[in-house]
Amino acid sequence: MIVRISPRGSLDQLSQLEVDRLKQGAKSDLYQLYRSCSLAVLASGLKSDNAEDLFTQYDTFNINVLQRERGVKIELINPPEQAFVDGQIIAGIQEHLFAVLRDIIYISNKYENLKHINLTNASHITNVVFDILRNARAISPMKDPNVIVCWGGHSINEIEYQYTREVGYQLGLRDLDICTGCGPGAMEGPMKGAAIGHAKQRVKNARYIGLTEPSIIAAEPPNQIVNELVILPDIEKRLEAFVRLGHGIIIFPGGAGTAEELLYLLGILLNQANSEIPFPLVLTGPAQSADYFDEIDAFVGATLGEEAQSKYQIIVDDPIKVAQIMKQGMEQVKTYRKSCGDAYQYQWSLKIEPEFQLPFEPTHEVMADLSLYFQQNKAELAANLRKAFSGIVAGNVKGETIKLIKQAGPFQIKGDPHLMEMMDKLLSAFVKQQRMKLPGSDYVPCYQIIK
Amino acid sequence: MIVRISPRGSLDQLSQLEVDRLKQGAKSDLYQLYRSCSLAVLASGLKSDNAEDLFTQYDTFNINVLQRERGVKIELINPPEQAFVDGQIIAGIQEHLFAVLRDIIYISNKYENLKHINLTNASHITNVVFDILRNARAISPMKDPNVIVCWGGHSINEIEYQYTREVGYQLGLRDLDICTGCGPGAMEGPMKGAAIGHAKQRVKNARYIGLTEPSIIAAEPPNQIVNELVILPDIEKRLEAFVRLGHGIIIFPGGAGTAEELLYLLGILLNQANSEIPFPLVLTGPAQSADYFDEIDAFVGATLGEEAQSKYQIIVDDPIKVAQIMKQGMEQVKTYRKSCGDAYQYQWSLKIEPEFQLPFEPTHEVMADLSLYFQQNKAELAANLRKAFSGIVAGNVKGETIKLIKQAGPFQIKGDPHLMEMMDKLLSAFVKQQRMKLPGSDYVPCYQIIK
Amino acid sequence: MIVRISPRGSLDQLSQLEVDRLKQGAKSDLYQLYRSCSLAVLASGLKSDNAEDLFTQYDTFNINVLQRERGVKIELINPPEQAFVDGQIIAGIQEHLFAVLRDIIYISNKYENLKHINLTNASHITNVVFDILRNARAISPMKDPNVIVCWGGHSINEIEYQYTREVGYQLGLRDLDICTGCGPGAMEGPMKGAAIGHAKQRVKNARYIGLTEPSIIAAEPPNQIVNELVILPDIEKRLEAFVRLGHGIIIFPGGAGTAEELLYLLGILLNQANSEIPFPLVLTGPAQSADYFDEIDAFVGATLGEEAQSKYQIIVDDPIKVAQIMKQGMEQVKTYRKSCGDAYQYQWSLKIEPEFQLPFEPTHEVMADLSLYFQQNKAELAANLRKAFSGIVAGNVKGETIKLIKQAGPFQIKGDPHLMEMMDKLLSAFVKQQRMKLPGSDYVPCYQIIK
Amino acid sequence: MIVRISPRGSLDQLSQLEVDRLKQGAKSDLYQLYRSCSLAVLASGLKSDNAEDLFTQYDTFNINVLQRERGVKIELINPPEQAFVDGQIIAGIQEHLFAVLRDIIYISNKYENLKHINLTNASHITNVVFDILRNARAISPMKDPNVIVCWGGHSINEIEYQYTREVGYQLGLRDLDICTGCGPGAMEGPMKGAAIGHAKQRVKNARYIGLTEPSIIAAEPPNQIVNELVILPDIEKRLEAFVRLGHGIIIFPGGAGTAEELLYLLGILLNQANSEIPFPLVLTGPAQSADYFDEIDAFVGATLGEEAQSKYQIIVDDPIKVAQIMKQGMEQVKTYRKSCGDAYQYQWSLKIEPEFQLPFEPTHEVMADLSLYFQQNKAELAANLRKAFSGIVAGNVKGETIKLIKQAGPFQIKGDPHLMEMMDKLLSAFVKQQRMKLPGSDYVPCYQIIK
Repeated sequence: MIVRISPRGSLDQLSQLEVDRLKQGAKSDLYQLYRSCSLAVLASGLKSDNAEDLFTQYDTFNINVLQRERGVKIELINPPEQAFVDGQIIAGIQEHLFAVLRDIIYISNKYENLKHINLTNASHITNVVFDILRNARAISPMKDPNVIVCWGGHSINEIEYQYTREVGYQLGLRDLDICTGCGPGAMEGPMKGAAIGHAKQRVKNARYIGLTEPSIIAAEPPNQIVNELVILPDIEKRLEAFVRLGHGIIIFPGGAGTAEELLYLLGILLNQANSEIPFPLVLTGPAQSADYFDEIDAFVGATLGEEAQSKYQIIVDDPIKVAQIMKQGMEQVKTYRKSCGDAYQYQWSLKIEPEFQLPFEPTHEVMADLSLYFQQNKAELAANLRKAFSGIVAGNVKGETIKLIKQAGPFQIKGDPHLMEMMDKLLSAFVKQQRMKLPGSDYVPCYQIIK
Repeated sequence: MIVRISPRGSLDQLSQLEVDRLKQGAKSDLYQLYRSCSLAVLASGLKSDNAEDLFTQYDTFNINVLQRERGVKIELINPPEQAFVDGQIIAGIQEHLFAVLRDIIYISNKYENLKHINLTNASHITNVVFDILRNARAISPMKDPNVIVCWGGHSINEIEYQYTREVGYQLGLRDLDICTGCGPGAMEGPMKGAAIGHAKQRVKNARYIGLTEPSIIAAEPPNQIVNELVILPDIEKRLEAFVRLGHGIIIFPGGAGTAEELLYLLGILLNQANSEIPFPLVLTGPAQSADYFDEIDAFVGATLGEEAQSKYQIIVDDPIKVAQIMKQGMEQVKTYRKSCGDAYQYQWSLKIEPEFQLPFEPTHEVMADLSLYFQQNKAELAANLRKAFSGIVAGNVKGETIKLIKQAGPFQIKGDPHLMEMMDKLLSAFVKQQRMKLPGSDYVPCYQIIK
Repeated sequence: MIVRISPRGSLDQLSQLEVDRLKQGAKSDLYQLYRSCSLAVLASGLKSDNAEDLFTQYDTFNINVLQRERGVKIELINPPEQAFVDGQIIAGIQEHLFAVLRDIIYISNKYENLKHINLTNASHITNVVFDILRNARAISPMKDPNVIVCWGGHSINEIEYQYTREVGYQLGLRDLDICTGCGPGAMEGPMKGAAIGHAKQRVKNARYIGLTEPSIIAAEPPNQIVNELVILPDIEKRLEAFVRLGHGIIIFPGGAGTAEELLYLLGILLNQANSEIPFPLVLTGPAQSADYFDEIDAFVGATLGEEAQSKYQIIVDDPIKVAQIMKQGMEQVKTYRKSCGDAYQYQWSLKIEPEFQLPFEPTHEVMADLSLYFQQNKAELAANLRKAFSGIVAGNVKGETIKLIKQAGPFQIKGDPHLMEMMDKLLSAFVKQQRMKLPGSDYVPCYQIIK
Repeated sequence: MIVRISPRGSLDQLSQLEVDRLKQGAKSDLYQLYRSCSLAVLASGLKSDNAEDLFTQYDTFNINVLQRERGVKIELINPPEQAFVDGQIIAGIQEHLFAVLRDIIYISNKYENLKHINLTNASHITNVVFDILRNARAISPMKDPNVIVCWGGHSINEIEYQYTREVGYQLGLRDLDICTGCGPGAMEGPMKGAAIGHAKQRVKNARYIGLTEPSIIAAEPPNQIVNELVILPDIEKRLEAFVRLGHGIIIFPGGAGTAEELLYLLGILLNQANSEIPFPLVLTGPAQSADYFDEIDAFVGATLGEEAQSKYQIIVDDPIKVAQIMKQGMEQVKTYRKSCGDAYQYQWSLKIEPEFQLPFEPTHEVMADLSLYFQQNKAELAANLRKAFSGIVAGNVKGETIKLIKQAGPFQIKGDPHLMEMMDKLLSAFVKQQRMKLPGSDYVPCYQIIK
């Protein structure tokens, strides 16, 4: 089956140079990256978080970029059927396909040209993230602060899912936009809920922003409510995009990825340079998730201390209050940004240390070498803990890391015995609550806590 | 509490004469009609189908129309709190408030001026219905046929509700608009589902049309997804609006009102003048509702015969197929209208006999006198059966009729014994399945079948 | 040649009753009215102010309204070629054709239904004018006061024309909208100038409102810049529309029609009930027109007195100052309307006496009977002088009145000898300056001043 | 006087790196370039083609870019008063200011990053031109071919000016967009005319594209009708932008610059690789300009031959025919592009040789060395003649070159005696007809033809 798809969304026409780059043969890394991201987007209707399965199932899938009189067309060979309704591609998926094309080409241009720039420079990284978001038209100067980032697991139970939806509904009723990692579960529920809230409030230009990355998009295909999809090159730039683009953050129950996100954010907020910056942060879930947050809170208290705990509020089973806190927080954010001249749509003034910016590539060696000890510098401990969880996420869902684990067994995570005890407990709870992977598959841990 | 609301939606400015009319004192019928419709709209968040309760609960509610520099403002005194989010009125409700104002004023102008016109004339009634819809901007010449009317009960169970939602989702994915009686249950589910489908397809101008009437609006307050609310003067004009505005009809499980709607439509489609007109009609529900449709189908077969049965398809548990039938039907409707020069947005050519147009006001006398016998003229039988069910609906939810029942006991419905047997069976099933009223209240029948 | 034209602009679909009304045969008055207004609109490119010529030249022209799937189409038989560019009708003319259809049908509906209403009642007339404007979507509640009415002759010289254009340009630069009688000359220049000013200021929703009437439209066909054309039934309702819709008025040099407009306005502003109402009014022209305004001013001073003179400013050769006065005036108008709750878009609070509202139909008898004497009640004198000039305009360009003059000779205008002297002088100047008719034809006066 | 201007138009937010670049001190070349282009834009109301005068007059003018909560603001210190209406900047100028900022930053980024790319490579240059246009949102994939480039002198007489306006009007009536060099004269008239035509046709999204370059913008400040202003780095890239973006070209009378444009285009069209490409080209002017075109035609005939003459049509005094030719040509262009898959909005397939792409910097040496002899390779002769005229334009209006001339006297232009004779005659005619500079100044030739 061959289908040709016309452009939709914020992609401008491509130059011949750009199209040629993607034609340079099916074997190029760039083309492979492009193909697999496109396939992930096309598969968004499937219930699976296993990228490998997806690629195996659609091994005859192929994609080409054609130059035509109205710019480019995308040619799909043997695409997943779920992307179509009565033979017509779903408009949301069509948009996402062109978002993939846009970002892959932009990043490849940027990185090639930037080879001579020192990308270990914090300011350069921050500018690159800005560039990618701007090129995706995700920087809209005329809107007041109202982007609420929702973090949480892709694998959550039905009660938690309905709760995320209800919170989204209350956010939508208050004309707040939603930004998530754009997969299923806690990344989808708030958007669906907000869509109903926005409809009742007649909000026509609501934003459902999805921030993803090539190595995770196939395991967490973007849901089609997302009307601004942006693909950042790696998890560190993606996290930076979340915290500079978002104006408030809600954390729902989740697994290792959610823990990574929380630790990343706390590490940054603990930086003294950021101590004055208002950043509404709420951890919330339904009544039956109360224990979950108690555990998380205890872990944070024991490792990062009271100051870290003071950065968030835990709210159980009260979607209206969550939404009200966010709504009120937007006023503070607006006032603060205005007073210091920082942009509403990209928080330049947030200080992020290089250890949170530089790509962390988990191998058995670096995972074993992480310095996981109680220490004075809480931000540093947060950074290291963040890496530990990041490695576990990669071992769970990122193709490259899964291969490593297959070859050499689970990662060994070492450190202070008491700390290891706590991590083990937390991770075991995640496993038991089926937060690591979608139910249906048996979860085999990709890590070992050495106590 | 006093709140002033600015205009929103399709109301033009009002003239001084029009505003004065609504100021003519709280005792005028027009003002009372206006007040109770407005209260119904404000109460749309409440779970109740009891108008009386509503009026009692908000007996201190009052409403005024004020002339201001940008046209009119509406002043609300002691309105229901559910209409507000953090002190701000919900935009959907704001829109509905002005739709009420628009239609009440338009109808009152029209009827006063039309007093000298013979409103028993079929062509005049059809033109009045057109006029009301046009004034509400519900006639949009540039759209191709795509309005799917969804009929069904306001009181349905959770499985049926999810099914109506899924059907709506599939309709939305196919860019079809939804039109319902705009209350809860089967009138709300398809709209919510379609909203998600439309979002995925990036349909920006989707229509969620709600057609209601003053005497039922308080029992079935419009849900806020409805973005085109129109208030027709009575059930007969409302039904005519449904069948001239809609391009296809889906009937979900429901009670007496749904039966009334089905009989009305079959009576019209059985008219020989309409035999060539394409009118996609599907009866559908989840697997567990299969019996329900068997019963309905048997009743239709026994009373109106095979020709009537040939006008609809029954589809069980297959939302995609339902949506596909509607989508394909739109092409036929378009071709037919084009070939005969009939308007896409108002089906002038559909022949409706006066017995379906003239207001039927149920009293004990007329209900007892209905001619309910098997006969050759199936359309006539359909008309009479329609009136019988219409009377029962009125006895269930319309204030005036409820009073009559309270005073003089249930309506007596008489006719052919076998026919009475069948009606009794059907109605008993509705009662048993809790389709007559929302669960929670005990249903006391407002009718007695005399066998 | 037969052409079919699709709808454009603010006409909603028509009902069958409405279409039928226009089909009732070529002999009906309504159809004739409709045909001649449509022809006038189609002839807008022609340089002529002679309606008779136009009708003779296009005596084979015919027009039909057809009901089609997207509402109505208009069928033109032998229309003027100037209305087309390479066989395609000009969009502005297409819009005007449907504006004619809209207003003719609306007025005919209204007047028929209103027969039982006492249209001599001032409040009813004011409401009818409002109704017509509202139906034409000329009441736009969201705009702040910014409609500048430009009055002046249809036959002005090139220097005056360029001056009106320059004033329009300066108004456009200040985001002010233009409203005129929509013919050539001083009715067109300000619109063309404003179009360039609006373009430079990127004003996308600029309004070029043209108010006309059936009996004059053929002599002064609407220019195609007009994007809101409204046809009022007669000159009195048209004048009322000007002063209730407009927020400020500029008067350029002109002939009898311009004098009529000035006297009408002064008569209203002299009403004590209106003494507090801010109403920016400027008489302006190029340097060479200075004398013209001296004469007008002297006439007003001698007849209506100093108070009348205080209502306007005369500004010679300074378009920027004219525009600045109007711009500043808008603020006062806005403040005033807000303070008294009067609508921004229709000045209900302006008091207009019946003698300015009731249709004046000039015949030899009523013209001879006009009470033209100096008197205390200046508003009454203004009303009578207004009628005298109105009769002269009718005798110049309105078909019906031209016939009367042909049959019975010029109108005899009598009154106070000194006043007659002054009128004669003023009118003679108009004739000499070729302000009565377009140059090219010899002007034969339709009046005689009896001194 | 200090004014702060908010963003308008197609500039996205800037990154901190980009803003910093423009802050690097008033002495940087980039800042100076930015300042002078901005001043030119602000001066667009002035009647002058002397950049030096402008810079002297406003030597206290200064400009800063400030980072603010909604992106950037521009701070103007002592700007020309003409840019303001009652203290408010004209929206068109505001838009142009941000277009300057956008293009200067984009080009500076691009050129820095591209240093390692071989910009003598034809394909790279073509891609850079595309990039600049795309970044300016001048590539709009959804429009069909309809961009008419109008070339012609900035200094033309009143009759010629009115003629360009009339042609523009006829183009506008046919829904064609206008693209010019965006200065006064023949670059402005067609836009003003088209604005009226577009208004009559209710064209809401009309494009008035102005392509300019830093070294000429101050001598030919963009008129404010231009709603898409793009600054290309040099004349060669600007000419390439014209011929790849435009779909048809009209040449009005002009001086050396117009000759340069004609020769450039003929040189390209004579390339065998382009022989099949449809490219509507008309030379036109009022009746009194007939001689002018005879001379040009004779010069082309004698130098480039009949084939070159066959590439254009000369039409005298017939604006309708000119517009019709262009309109019909658009169909051919569309068909051709579709058949070969070339983009509607950027003609990739047009072959342009490096001699037309590489920047030509006129010095006394290179001007004297131009090979101006009759030869077989007409395209090459066209290229050299183009350079000769380009040098003369530079000597007339570009600051750098004017300095060279002041220092070392006029350019010496040598070559075949007969050819020199012809050039001399043509240039003398331009001088005599005051086409070299705006009337008022005495023109001192910047060249000497050595015969």
